[in-house]
Amino acid sequence: MDIRQKTINNIRTLAADTVQKANSGHPGAPMGMAPLAYALWVNTMRHNPKDPQWKNRDRFVLSSGHASALLYTMLHLTGYGLTMDDMKQFRQWGSKTPGHPEYRHTVGIETTTGPLGQGVANAVGFAIAETMVAAHFNRPNFPVVDHRVYAVCGDGCLMEGISSEAASLAGTLKLGKLTLLYDDNDISIEGNTDIAFRENVGDRFAAYGWQVIRLQDGNDVDAVIAALEDAKRDERPTIVICPTKIGFGCPAKEGKPSAHGEPLGEDNVKETKKNLGMPEDTFCVLPEVYQHCEEAMKKNEQAEKEWNELFAAYAKAYPELAEEWEDWFSADLPDDVVMNDALWQWEKKDATRNTSGEMIQRLAKLLPNLVGGSADLAPSNKTYIKEGGDYSAENRAGRNLHFGVREHAMAAICNGIALHGGLRVFCGTFFVFSDYMKHAIRMSAIMKIPVTYVLTHDSIGVGEDGATHEPIEQLAGLRAIPDLLVFRPADGKETTAAWLTALTAGLPTCLVLTRQALPNYENSGCEAMKGGYILADADKETPDVLLMASGSEVEQVMGAKEELKKEGIDARVISMPCMELFLKQDGAYQESVIPAAVRARVAMEAGATMPWYRFTGLDGKVLGIDHYGASAPAKILFEKFGFTVENAVKAAKEVLGK
Amino acid sequence: MDIRQKTINNIRTLAADTVQKANSGHPGAPMGMAPLAYALWVNTMRHNPKDPQWKNRDRFVLSSGHASALLYTMLHLTGYGLTMDDMKQFRQWGSKTPGHPEYRHTVGIETTTGPLGQGVANAVGFAIAETMVAAHFNRPNFPVVDHRVYAVCGDGCLMEGISSEAASLAGTLKLGKLTLLYDDNDISIEGNTDIAFRENVGDRFAAYGWQVIRLQDGNDVDAVIAALEDAKRDERPTIVICPTKIGFGCPAKEGKPSAHGEPLGEDNVKETKKNLGMPEDTFCVLPEVYQHCEEAMKKNEQAEKEWNELFAAYAKAYPELAEEWEDWFSADLPDDVVMNDALWQWEKKDATRNTSGEMIQRLAKLLPNLVGGSADLAPSNKTYIKEGGDYSAENRAGRNLHFGVREHAMAAICNGIALHGGLRVFCGTFFVFSDYMKHAIRMSAIMKIPVTYVLTHDSIGVGEDGATHEPIEQLAGLRAIPDLLVFRPADGKETTAAWLTALTAGLPTCLVLTRQALPNYENSGCEAMKGGYILADADKETPDVLLMASGSEVEQVMGAKEELKKEGIDARVISMPCMELFLKQDGAYQESVIPAAVRARVAMEAGATMPWYRFTGLDGKVLGIDHYGASAPAKILFEKFGFTVENAVKAAKEVLGK
Repeated sequence: MDIRQKTINNIRTLAADTVQKANSGHPGAPMGMAPLAYALWVNTMRHNPKDPQWKNRDRFVLSSGHASALLYTMLHLTGYGLTMDDMKQFRQWGSKTPGHPEYRHTVGIETTTGPLGQGVANAVGFAIAETMVAAHFNRPNFPVVDHRVYAVCGDGCLMEGISSEAASLAGTLKLGKLTLLYDDNDISIEGNTDIAFRENVGDRFAAYGWQVIRLQDGNDVDAVIAALEDAKRDERPTIVICPTKIGFGCPAKEGKPSAHGEPLGEDNVKETKKNLGMPEDTFCVLPEVYQHCEEAMKKNEQAEKEWNELFAAYAKAYPELAEEWEDWFSADLPDDVVMNDALWQWEKKDATRNTSGEMIQRLAKLLPNLVGGSADLAPSNKTYIKEGGDYSAENRAGRNLHFGVREHAMAAICNGIALHGGLRVFCGTFFVFSDYMKHAIRMSAIMKIPVTYVLTHDSIGVGEDGATHEPIEQLAGLRAIPDLLVFRPADGKETTAAWLTALTAGLPTCLVLTRQALPNYENSGCEAMKGGYILADADKETPDVLLMASGSEVEQVMGAKEELKKEGIDARVISMPCMELFLKQDGAYQESVIPAAVRARVAMEAGATMPWYRFTGLDGKVLGIDHYGASAPAKILFEKFGFTVENAVKAAKEVLGK
Repeated sequence: MDIRQKTINNIRTLAADTVQKANSGHPGAPMGMAPLAYALWVNTMRHNPKDPQWKNRDRFVLSSGHASALLYTMLHLTGYGLTMDDMKQFRQWGSKTPGHPEYRHTVGIETTTGPLGQGVANAVGFAIAETMVAAHFNRPNFPVVDHRVYAVCGDGCLMEGISSEAASLAGTLKLGKLTLLYDDNDISIEGNTDIAFRENVGDRFAAYGWQVIRLQDGNDVDAVIAALEDAKRDERPTIVICPTKIGFGCPAKEGKPSAHGEPLGEDNVKETKKNLGMPEDTFCVLPEVYQHCEEAMKKNEQAEKEWNELFAAYAKAYPELAEEWEDWFSADLPDDVVMNDALWQWEKKDATRNTSGEMIQRLAKLLPNLVGGSADLAPSNKTYIKEGGDYSAENRAGRNLHFGVREHAMAAICNGIALHGGLRVFCGTFFVFSDYMKHAIRMSAIMKIPVTYVLTHDSIGVGEDGATHEPIEQLAGLRAIPDLLVFRPADGKETTAAWLTALTAGLPTCLVLTRQALPNYENSGCEAMKGGYILADADKETPDVLLMASGSEVEQVMGAKEELKKEGIDARVISMPCMELFLKQDGAYQESVIPAAVRARVAMEAGATMPWYRFTGLDGKVLGIDHYGASAPAKILFEKFGFTVENAVKAAKEVLGK
């Protein structure tokens, strides 16, 4: 057995041991994919375990995240600091080796995966980002950005629609530095893939405009390595179809669904080791295997050294670009954004989608690395950066991405762009279609990466398009996602606050914006960045009643305050553009806005009532909409569904017992 | 101009007038697709406007639902009772012609569309249902179920991942009666489709296993009709690629994005009519066009007449099948399900996913038209009907569907199956991946069709798979969807209640089920069908404190009740498996369970806290989880994240000020 085969077999046994010790996990895919992992991590990929943050490293995405034991094994063998003790703590409380790979949690993990298909789209995002950053910074003889993106996926990833969306776009955009290795093992959880998946994957990817390389045997590591080289020579993205066997090496389970999602069993692990010619000891890595991997990493260390030299020369030749490089890769906002009064100036009554559109123009001038796009709704979402150019296969310098009608991939691609580093990214669609990308939004949140979602047409204010296009439950649904900010501004200044929050919070942010025009309020402003604040106070120190709202319904409660005043009722209006931020404020601030002593509370929002009860309590009243909308001009819908000043007044009197 | 061309042009002008009068809507697609609509509605489809519920009618799905003016035009012309006044009320409050086609709302609409791609998957569901019902009922010389399914879609639908998922499955399943007409007009909202969509659609569908027919010109109605005939002769599903021009006939806008989503303008409408050789009057339908359509419908009337005769002969030859036919197409449950005590019998402590799995076995024996499947997780979701056989291209009688890892299409396909009639359908995946199919679930709800969603692994109880696989916000998100029931049972009997609710409520129902074992409670039972009820009461008439929970956390609050008792605190335990049903009960019942006088309230649920505040108020306490989970054995996670008896006791004392 040569050292390569020995290493591949050792990858298999270490992964099998890891799953066996945890008594939980997925041994089959790591064992089948071991040659692919070897080819990538030990042979082909340019990555330096001594500097996992090297900006020009190749990126690796394990889209089939359940094969995490494989990824941990490679991190361990190539020297990312994941210890054998970490391996032994696989899937245990507090370990560095959770059931699925988690970004930030474990050094060397580029993206959190597990939910199938997401990783393929993330990889497309990485590849787009590479071309964008390269287009801006590279100069003749100075290819300071020049890396590849590798993703590994299984049948499951390729059945998911999100990967189809992403692959079609990748073909359109000719992302030649993207290589996808398809672990084609014919096995799914319910049985042979034939029961649900008889399509010709290679032909499908050819139709998308990809180079398709079909291997005879995914276990032939020379063939895999040669395919990875062929991929480099083609201007199209490449899929390498690797026929593999799930659970390779385990006599009892090889090629069977039972190898997928449970430990092999002590006896089978032993048989596997015997079969593969490996020692029977658990968690054994042969010294020559460690040595082989260590040797292999030296060329990578050298590669980064050379890149550092290249970059130093670049910085000398192009000092301004080198300075800009720092800005692009920094999360901090420049002072001319943070301290810029002009960003807060709004004159006319306008839809917040328009205000957001204008904010994008203002910000794009100050932040040259702000890029974004829409799922074919840019004219409606107001997401187009004027003079930003269109990103395409022919123009990598364009700042406007055309995602096509592919919301799910769009969000996951933006996750990849954000993870790559160097860019600030936003994407847009109609608010109701945030549903289509809900899980990718969740992935932004679980990774705490600052993707900005521009979600317009935010309520029954959509009007004539009718119930299918009118969000009802989307505010509640998104607000319930941990580590996501949902910002629904009421006017121009609150829209500014929303955008600045999105750019600084270090979390994904949804901007939920109207189609219809809204007035500007005198007292709105940067306090909106606290999530909730007093927009118009009562004359009394303790108000008679609290009127709360977000977005377009702030107008109705402001009107109600005036009406109530005429009847001697002194109301405080609280604008609540972002509940999550308000709940992060200290208790004293929250009390100063919503005093515990005032139980007469009314909330109005053109969405499901659920999120408001925590503020109104049992003695208050929530005016929302817990049924579907309808098709008619927006103004009529607001009246018919009770979003009126009159109704807010009525509710206020009710909670006051009047 | 022959009568066919005249009719096609009249379709264009009526659709253009309709949008113009509404001053809102999408004229371009109807004008481009008019020949397709003519070929289908007037020439090829077997449908009888005089009996829109004819069970053997061909089904039509307008997946590009924004082209609703086209569908309304065809309903008007072929005599479905949609009047010219209805056309004039397009997109207005209370009209029969909302912005997007709505099932139930307008006679002749088979499914609600608008959110792109859903219709393609619905059509796959219709086609599956046709084969299933046919396999059960057809007999030699009695093809009582023998109809086709037609769907029309645009570029947008084909960019969406859901249509890729559905098309791949349709190819695998060789759904030969499905024909998809692709309105290939090269135009998207952001510009030419080249900016985002350069793939070869035909090659892609060929890779899925479809017959691909490429027309030279979608405006050539003879060619369209010939293609529809070719489709009938192939055992594979067929896509007919029809090159069309958006806004055909309008000199100023033909072939341009501006024809898509706004009225043409008065002048352009006039020019269009002149250009097409049609009268200038608005809402004009030529008498010969009405006559032509009326004539054409006569053959359909005759077709149904013949089918009725066939069915009468069938009923004579196979009286038992004819009786069964009535059962299959009835929404009512037979008495041996409703009145069946055996369905309520549960002995051992078990996971609710297992109990649900056993319920499926019990129900499948009583309901031969119960069919379902999973997105490749049947062994985990416990959705497999034993002895039900596997549905496939080779076995249409199978009751177990293998959807592959395609959650979004799965849900939308089940919508199609439910809409078709004749079957009761369920589908399963991990609860966290309900995100992937959120919008299709919304479509079930907006149409009020009884699809049952079996969602297992419902909380941090997932354990080792970790944060990516642990639902947190999904309960809140789904509960906020109007007209959807979310049932999270606490034990065996509540699982029975959940299933019986799903089968009788006439609404889609999510069954949210544990991976881990739960005890059975003495007092649980059919009261669970009220959504919330007293599981264990206080001794006092007015309890000291209310302890509320759903699903697995009922165990903790039951334990807390015991502990509190020892300290002289008298608690009532309220099991709340389905908030939506509880909120539908009358006020007296709600008060009998949750007395307004008791403000000391604690709710515990292993999910986001948001849904519970409406029950706990400002003086109560919600014990939930508003952050992501972790990877470790489930028992450890429950302790670490505070879902313990001890914590419930502590919270109860806190709300009592003790």
